[in-house]
Amino acid sequence: MSSSDIFIGETIGTAILILLGGGVCAAVTLKASKARNAGWLAIAFGWGFAVMTAAYISGPLSGAHLNPALTVALAIKDGGWNNVPVYFAGQLLGAVIGAVLVWAAYYGQFLAHLTDKEIVGGPGAQATSAKAVEAQEKGAGPVLGIFSTGPEIRNVAQNLATEIIGTVVLILAVLTQGLNDQGNGLGVIGGLITALVVVSIGLSLGGPTGYAINPARDLGPRIVHALLPLPNKGGSDWSYAWIPVVGPLAGGAIAAGIYNLAFA
Amino acid sequence: MSSSDIFIGETIGTAILILLGGGVCAAVTLKASKARNAGWLAIAFGWGFAVMTAAYISGPLSGAHLNPALTVALAIKDGGWNNVPVYFAGQLLGAVIGAVLVWAAYYGQFLAHLTDKEIVGGPGAQATSAKAVEAQEKGAGPVLGIFSTGPEIRNVAQNLATEIIGTVVLILAVLTQGLNDQGNGLGVIGGLITALVVVSIGLSLGGPTGYAINPARDLGPRIVHALLPLPNKGGSDWSYAWIPVVGPLAGGAIAAGIYNLAFA
Amino acid sequence: MSSSDIFIGETIGTAILILLGGGVCAAVTLKASKARNAGWLAIAFGWGFAVMTAAYISGPLSGAHLNPALTVALAIKDGGWNNVPVYFAGQLLGAVIGAVLVWAAYYGQFLAHLTDKEIVGGPGAQATSAKAVEAQEKGAGPVLGIFSTGPEIRNVAQNLATEIIGTVVLILAVLTQGLNDQGNGLGVIGGLITALVVVSIGLSLGGPTGYAINPARDLGPRIVHALLPLPNKGGSDWSYAWIPVVGPLAGGAIAAGIYNLAFA
Amino acid sequence: MSSSDIFIGETIGTAILILLGGGVCAAVTLKASKARNAGWLAIAFGWGFAVMTAAYISGPLSGAHLNPALTVALAIKDGGWNNVPVYFAGQLLGAVIGAVLVWAAYYGQFLAHLTDKEIVGGPGAQATSAKAVEAQEKGAGPVLGIFSTGPEIRNVAQNLATEIIGTVVLILAVLTQGLNDQGNGLGVIGGLITALVVVSIGLSLGGPTGYAINPARDLGPRIVHALLPLPNKGGSDWSYAWIPVVGPLAGGAIAAGIYNLAFA
Repeated sequence: MSSSDIFIGETIGTAILILLGGGVCAAVTLKASKARNAGWLAIAFGWGFAVMTAAYISGPLSGAHLNPALTVALAIKDGGWNNVPVYFAGQLLGAVIGAVLVWAAYYGQFLAHLTDKEIVGGPGAQATSAKAVEAQEKGAGPVLGIFSTGPEIRNVAQNLATEIIGTVVLILAVLTQGLNDQGNGLGVIGGLITALVVVSIGLSLGGPTGYAINPARDLGPRIVHALLPLPNKGGSDWSYAWIPVVGPLAGGAIAAGIYNLAFA
Repeated sequence: MSSSDIFIGETIGTAILILLGGGVCAAVTLKASKARNAGWLAIAFGWGFAVMTAAYISGPLSGAHLNPALTVALAIKDGGWNNVPVYFAGQLLGAVIGAVLVWAAYYGQFLAHLTDKEIVGGPGAQATSAKAVEAQEKGAGPVLGIFSTGPEIRNVAQNLATEIIGTVVLILAVLTQGLNDQGNGLGVIGGLITALVVVSIGLSLGGPTGYAINPARDLGPRIVHALLPLPNKGGSDWSYAWIPVVGPLAGGAIAAGIYNLAFA
Repeated sequence: MSSSDIFIGETIGTAILILLGGGVCAAVTLKASKARNAGWLAIAFGWGFAVMTAAYISGPLSGAHLNPALTVALAIKDGGWNNVPVYFAGQLLGAVIGAVLVWAAYYGQFLAHLTDKEIVGGPGAQATSAKAVEAQEKGAGPVLGIFSTGPEIRNVAQNLATEIIGTVVLILAVLTQGLNDQGNGLGVIGGLITALVVVSIGLSLGGPTGYAINPARDLGPRIVHALLPLPNKGGSDWSYAWIPVVGPLAGGAIAAGIYNLAFA
Repeated sequence: MSSSDIFIGETIGTAILILLGGGVCAAVTLKASKARNAGWLAIAFGWGFAVMTAAYISGPLSGAHLNPALTVALAIKDGGWNNVPVYFAGQLLGAVIGAVLVWAAYYGQFLAHLTDKEIVGGPGAQATSAKAVEAQEKGAGPVLGIFSTGPEIRNVAQNLATEIIGTVVLILAVLTQGLNDQGNGLGVIGGLITALVVVSIGLSLGGPTGYAINPARDLGPRIVHALLPLPNKGGSDWSYAWIPVVGPLAGGAIAAGIYNLAFA
């Protein structure tokens, strides 16, 4: 693959991943969305099929990493780091674009939600409702969860551990089955299986932190949340932002190590 | 494929698509349905598997476009427009037949729902309940959502954008993986994958407008809603009807353009 | 295939189909079940995967018809009626065995449910609660729905039409894709696809009558309901019993006719 | 396969199975989990995809039994018992490790849940709330269900029967389709199908006992529950512990017998 194919593929693929993944969070969260309160099963399936759809579209161009943790793991496994910066750049740019597309698709819903007095205490007000006060104490705005992940209970050790464990499971499944190997019939199945592994992790390990398990998935949309001119959006919780970056990268490296030790 | 195979295949296939897709909306909406209030996840899976079932049945005859947006995208990609009118005709006729079949399968439920005083203000009454008044203000009758899509927040720019974005994702996935290529084992998998892509779009991008992402899926059933002798059915919301036609067609063309630029 | 393989395969397969299909109805309905009130999506997926599991187990022996409507359709399509009585016998016997297994697996739950005063008006009482009176008026006992199907609104024409429509969709999908053709990789996929087609029909067309779409699935368990010594079980609603037999058989024949006309 | 590959594969695989399976129970049960109250469908899909993910990761090393009932069934079918102790040892060790990982991933949630006065009657208190008293009467602590299974209604005959029936279905599906046969494209599909069979059993037969259908899945985590220093954790219900060991082992043997009689 050429560098430009990798960059374009990762940008398009990660944009679609975040569009669909952030989209399901918006769909389930925002006022005036038909899918409001559809529940955690909808979120888990939504993110899983988001990975699948993005992988199918970008697979022919870039091999569909879509996740710096996978890029790192494959570099460790194969010993080739040349293309890593290109993958990273496409992934972060794609995540930013995807988050902007979520905002475009749910423009009116964001506005209705963030100007609803019961949710944010009215336009211009500073968190007068119980829910908004609680959100501010956590340093997280009322729609931040549509963009980035956050912990239910703040505990650096546990939050890091949960992200590492989830990422190890994801990357081990991809490496042992070669699920990222596009280009034949197995590739089509590979995308489906990867999707269901992501559903599995979401259902089983998403409870404490919201399962970033992908640095680009969390950092890109958090940047967009910080920059977008949304009313009453609250803070972007930057103090937490390093955990869903470091945890998944560490998880990817650990998974590659386990693979090289036990499976290679 | 012969023109008659295409026409028959698209008519049967789109009829089954709308029967099953409109069916899940009826099942979840109508009084005296066992599936009432089954939730958005049921709707998203219901429409996804509707596409799958319809694709399997019509694939051997017509290649299972079932969607004018896909027909347009394939014509742009392959440069062949000869069969487009035959595809369009079959798709619209099939959508009309499918909507009539939904009405037949849920005949008693439609009657019970539309003569329930809490829902429509009693037989013959003009929208006296709060819910019915709200529906009328939107120009949408109490069962129109079983036939056609409609926005939660009316905003031409956003509504068009959401339909375009959703359709681009659908068509890009089909084009990059050749999911419409029936005739071998991949075809069977292709139908499944297409289904799950549609589930993904429904979960992630269905919140604002109800994701038509297919002109025939919206226009055919809207015509049937206007013509069927249902009591207290309310308006067919024709002022919105152009958006789920123009948006998906534009989305299909844009997807074909992206494909030709980046993937061909 | 030998007649004995067909008989044993259909008996085992249909027993597992009804064990798992009736099982999910018991799981969602009965008091003291962990899955109580899990909702319609659980029922639709439960029946779909029941078909899949039963098909995988019985496929190598009998080809996994498991449904007299499919047996009739294949006989019409292929012009061979010799084995039809053997298939029918295995299917009905299997359905009876499966329903007895549901009762064994949920023995304590049936007892707890049927002796709960709020549900049946207390042991020995004759339907004093509103819910029990309503059930008696319908001629249906409080657990009949775990065994057999029944209409939400009684209307011979609509109830028959809904069962016919659902069965036509099922059988057309099986015939056009050869989903019952076991013996290679496609067979494994065929079982999965059939499962999802059944989920689709359940979500979309199950609302009015509970989608028997299979005469053995309804008749066998209804016989068991009539014979089992359950307290306060109420009537077996025999006046409705012919519809889920005649409707699916007619649907299978119609689907075979459509197949021979348009697809052969 | 070498003994060490088998041991390592079964240990890693069963650890991931219990991490993801116990994880979904924690996610749905514990206070301060984003997935709390996600419902039975989430549990059924969560356990199914847990089996799938664990099977993909361990398949290349050990063939992914992950369940002593399957190991016994394959030994009966193939007549080879040499590796059985190695499989058993890996499965039990893996289950213990997996349960500890669930505790690590949900550390703060366990603490918040078990020190919530409404759930356990306050720190140090002995079951003063109605819910806690009921749990103590059953001999089951408030979080035991995250580790091990337990019956809704205690009845040795029924509880054993339900576990046997569920396991027979699982093992018959694996044996008749060779779903454990990794090493080619069918293997990838095999993992998916096994997952959906497990979902099916969970939806249909999980209501009475919580469907262990795997001795290691129940015994390993129960040992961890007994040893972990959790506040107010309550009893480990050892009087029930033999049923989810004996039932599934008997089920595996019965399934192998049926297979040898009817399918071999």
